[in-house]
Amino acid sequence: MYRLIYLFFMMLQVTACNKPSGGEVGEAIQPNIIILFADDLGYGDLSCYGHPLIRTPHLDQMALEGIRLTSFYVAESVCSPSRAALLTGRYPFRSGMHFVLGPESTNGIPDEEFTIAEGLKSKGYRTAIFGKWHLGHQPDFLPTKHGFDEYFGIPYSNDMMKPWVQTDIPLSLWENESPVEHPVDQDYLTERYTERAVAFIRDNKDHPFFLYLPYNMPHMPVHASPRFRGKSRGGLYGDVIEMIDWSAGQILKTLDDLNIAGRTFIVFSSDNGPWSAVPERMVANGNERHHAGTAGLLAGRKATPYEGGHRVPAIIRFPGFIPSGQVSANMSTTMDLYTTVMDLAGVSLPDDLTFDGQSLLTFLKGDTGVPDKAFYYILGKKLWAVRYGPWKLMIDNKGERGIEPDDFDSLKLFHLEFDPGERYDFSDKNPEIVKELKQMLINFDEEMSGFMN
Amino acid sequence: MYRLIYLFFMMLQVTACNKPSGGEVGEAIQPNIIILFADDLGYGDLSCYGHPLIRTPHLDQMALEGIRLTSFYVAESVCSPSRAALLTGRYPFRSGMHFVLGPESTNGIPDEEFTIAEGLKSKGYRTAIFGKWHLGHQPDFLPTKHGFDEYFGIPYSNDMMKPWVQTDIPLSLWENESPVEHPVDQDYLTERYTERAVAFIRDNKDHPFFLYLPYNMPHMPVHASPRFRGKSRGGLYGDVIEMIDWSAGQILKTLDDLNIAGRTFIVFSSDNGPWSAVPERMVANGNERHHAGTAGLLAGRKATPYEGGHRVPAIIRFPGFIPSGQVSANMSTTMDLYTTVMDLAGVSLPDDLTFDGQSLLTFLKGDTGVPDKAFYYILGKKLWAVRYGPWKLMIDNKGERGIEPDDFDSLKLFHLEFDPGERYDFSDKNPEIVKELKQMLINFDEEMSGFMN
Repeated sequence: MYRLIYLFFMMLQVTACNKPSGGEVGEAIQPNIIILFADDLGYGDLSCYGHPLIRTPHLDQMALEGIRLTSFYVAESVCSPSRAALLTGRYPFRSGMHFVLGPESTNGIPDEEFTIAEGLKSKGYRTAIFGKWHLGHQPDFLPTKHGFDEYFGIPYSNDMMKPWVQTDIPLSLWENESPVEHPVDQDYLTERYTERAVAFIRDNKDHPFFLYLPYNMPHMPVHASPRFRGKSRGGLYGDVIEMIDWSAGQILKTLDDLNIAGRTFIVFSSDNGPWSAVPERMVANGNERHHAGTAGLLAGRKATPYEGGHRVPAIIRFPGFIPSGQVSANMSTTMDLYTTVMDLAGVSLPDDLTFDGQSLLTFLKGDTGVPDKAFYYILGKKLWAVRYGPWKLMIDNKGERGIEPDDFDSLKLFHLEFDPGERYDFSDKNPEIVKELKQMLINFDEEMSGFMN
Repeated sequence: MYRLIYLFFMMLQVTACNKPSGGEVGEAIQPNIIILFADDLGYGDLSCYGHPLIRTPHLDQMALEGIRLTSFYVAESVCSPSRAALLTGRYPFRSGMHFVLGPESTNGIPDEEFTIAEGLKSKGYRTAIFGKWHLGHQPDFLPTKHGFDEYFGIPYSNDMMKPWVQTDIPLSLWENESPVEHPVDQDYLTERYTERAVAFIRDNKDHPFFLYLPYNMPHMPVHASPRFRGKSRGGLYGDVIEMIDWSAGQILKTLDDLNIAGRTFIVFSSDNGPWSAVPERMVANGNERHHAGTAGLLAGRKATPYEGGHRVPAIIRFPGFIPSGQVSANMSTTMDLYTTVMDLAGVSLPDDLTFDGQSLLTFLKGDTGVPDKAFYYILGKKLWAVRYGPWKLMIDNKGERGIEPDDFDSLKLFHLEFDPGERYDFSDKNPEIVKELKQMLINFDEEMSGFMN
C-alpha cells in the first residue's frame, strides 16, 4: 500500500505545478506537514463557509487551491479530547483523554500513544508545536516527550486563569519544558506563534518537517493585537478570526517564498464548534457574550452532540496532489487526517493499538466514491449519537454514562443531507434505519465501556 | 450625472476584458440587464453562501467573476411586495402592493408605477419576463401592460392550487395575456423558462435587452425534472437549487457564446428568505416538511422581520465594470438595484414618485465608502424594525397595524455586525441608539400611515 502511494506520489511530483525547489525528486516524497488548528472556531466563521462579515481571504484562497470539506468532524466537541484524537488517530476514550484537562490535572497523554509527531519523527521529520497543547503539563506529558522537538506556547486554555484555578500555569508561556514568561499578553499570542512558525519553516526548508500550530484563539477571552483590533466588521471576535487568517496567510506566503508549497500538505481546521453561552466568570473577566462564533446553519455548539459541536471547517491544500477548487461533502474526521498524514510519510502504525481513521488519500485526489462509515458522537463518558451515511441517530436524555434502557425512549433520527440543520425527526418513518443505528450505538457503547472507570 | 456615467462606461468599454462582439463601441453603452430571481431561496442555500451539500458551481463562479453581497435586502419578506419593490424601486406600501396577491385578487400593480421594464423600454430595450409575475392577472395588471414585450409563465405562486383556491389560474401557463396550458407540469418549469430565456438572448444579441427570470422554484411544492431529481446530496430541495444553478449556467454560457458577457449586467437573487413551517395543506399535497431551505446563520425565515426573512443572496457580474472577486457586506436593497439599473440605462426617474433606492454604481466598482442609510422591515401594514448602519431596532409585539404606544415596551436592539444572528439584545447598554432608531421608526410609520386604509 505504501509502495503504491510512494510510486503515485513520485509520479505526481514530476508533473506538479509547484516543483520542489532543489535536490532530487526522491527527496520530496515525504511532504512537509502543517496543521493549523484554531480553538472554538465555528463551522460558519470563515467567509468561504458563509460568514457575511468576517473576511478570510487567505483561507478562502487556500480552499480554491485545494479542497474544502463540509462534513469534517472532530472526535469530541471539547478541547483536550479533540486534540488527543487528532494527534493519536483514536477516539479519546481509548487513550483515557476523554476529559478536559485543567491546570490542576496530574494526568496527560499516555506514553503508549503513537502521536503524529512521533510517527513523523521516526521518518526523520523535524517537529514543532507552537500554541495550545492541552494534553497535560506534568513532565511526562509535555510535547517534547511525545515526539515534538520543540514547544512554544501556553499549555492550557486561555481562560483557565486565577481566581478560577489556583495556579499560574495557564497564562504562562512555555518554551519546551519550562514556563518562561508570566503572565503572557494574550493580544500578541497569535502573532508570536506565527513568527515562530515562519522561522521554523525557514530553518527547515531543505528538510521534511511537521509543524503543528494550535492557536489559542478564538477561544474566550478573545484577544487581538492593536493592528487587528477594530479592523473587522465582526467586532472583536471578527478581528481575532481575521488575525488567524493573516497568520495562515503568512505561513502560505512563506511556503511560496521558499518554493516548497508543492511539497507541503497543509490543513486548516478547528478543535470544535463555537461557544455561545458564556459562563458568568467570563463576563466578569471583561468578555461580552456577543464575542461568539457561529456554526452557520448547523444546530448546537461546542460541548453538544449536535452538528455545530462536532463539525468544523477543514481546508486542505497540497498542490499537484489534491486537485484545486474542490468542495466535498464526503464525511471525514481528524482521525482520518492522522492516518492520512502517516500514510503520506510512509509511517507504519503499531499493531497493538486500535486506530479509528482511514486514509483520505484517494478521496482527496478527487475520488468521490468514499464508502459509508460510522462516526460516533461522544462527550466525556457518554455516547450520544451515531452517524452512518446521511443518517444520524441521537439520544436525547441527560444521563452521564453509558446507554441506559430508557435512553431509547427519546431517540431522534436526522437526515444530515436533506436536513443538515437537524430540524426534522424522521424516526417514525424509518424504523429499520433506527433499528440498525440503535444496534450500532449499543455495540459501540459496549466497546467504550471497557475503557471507563 | 447620467452623462458622467455614460462617459465612464464608454471609457470602460474600451478596456473591458469582454469586448462587445460587433458594431461600434457606442452601441454597447446601455448594457443588457438580466435579473435571475429565485422564489423563497434562503440566505444559506448556495454553496458560496456556505451550504454544506448543495452544489452551485455556476453561481459560485459568477460570484468569483463579480461581486457577492452579504447584506442585500428585499423590501418585504413575502412574494408580491418583494417583487413590486424590485420592479418599482419603492417600498410596496407606496404602490399599494404590500399584500400577497392570490388568484382571486382583482387588484394588481397600478398604472402609476414606473417599472424597470417601462424605463428600459423607453430607452429602446427589448423586454421579457419568463416566470412568476405575482402582481395581478386581470388584464390591466399583466406584464405586457407594464413594460414587458413578452410574458411566459404562471402568474401566481405554484402552491395556489385547488381546492385551496377556486380557480385554475395559478397552475395555468400563460403566454402574454392568456392562459395557454393547464395544468402545467411543474417538473419542467425551470427548464422551460430557461429555454425561453436563452432563445430571447440569442434573438436580441445585437440589441439591448432586459430579461427578468423570476423562477417559481424553490417555493413549495418543490419540483425538479427527471435529470435533476435525486442528483443532489440535499434531497429534492437540493435538486431544485442545483437545477436553478444549471439554469443560471445556461444563461451565462449563452452570454459567453454570443460574446456579449462584457456588455451584460447580470444579477442573481431571491424574493425572500426560506419557508420552514409548512402549512398542513402542503403536506397533504405531497410535500414534506424537510424540503425547506436555510437562512444559514441568520435568524428567522420568510414572513418574519428577522434577517433570515429579508436578507437574501445577491451576486452581480458585469465584467470590466465590476471588479472580480469582491465580497461586500455593505448594505443594499432590491430598490437600490432598481435605481442602479435605471442609472446604467440612462433612464430619468419621474419626479412625482418617491423612490427608495440609491444607485450602487460607485459601490459596485469597489468603492467601500457607502454612507449609512436606513432600511425598514415591513410586513403588510406593519412596520417592525429599522436598520441603520450596523444597528437594528425591532418591535417584538404582535400588533397588526401601525406603531402602538405599548410596542415600545418590547424593543430589541441588535448589532448586525458583531451579532449577525440576532442573538443578543443590546438595548440596555445603548439607550441613545435606541432613542435615535425609535424616532426613525415613529417617523417612518407616520409616512406609511398616509398610505394605509
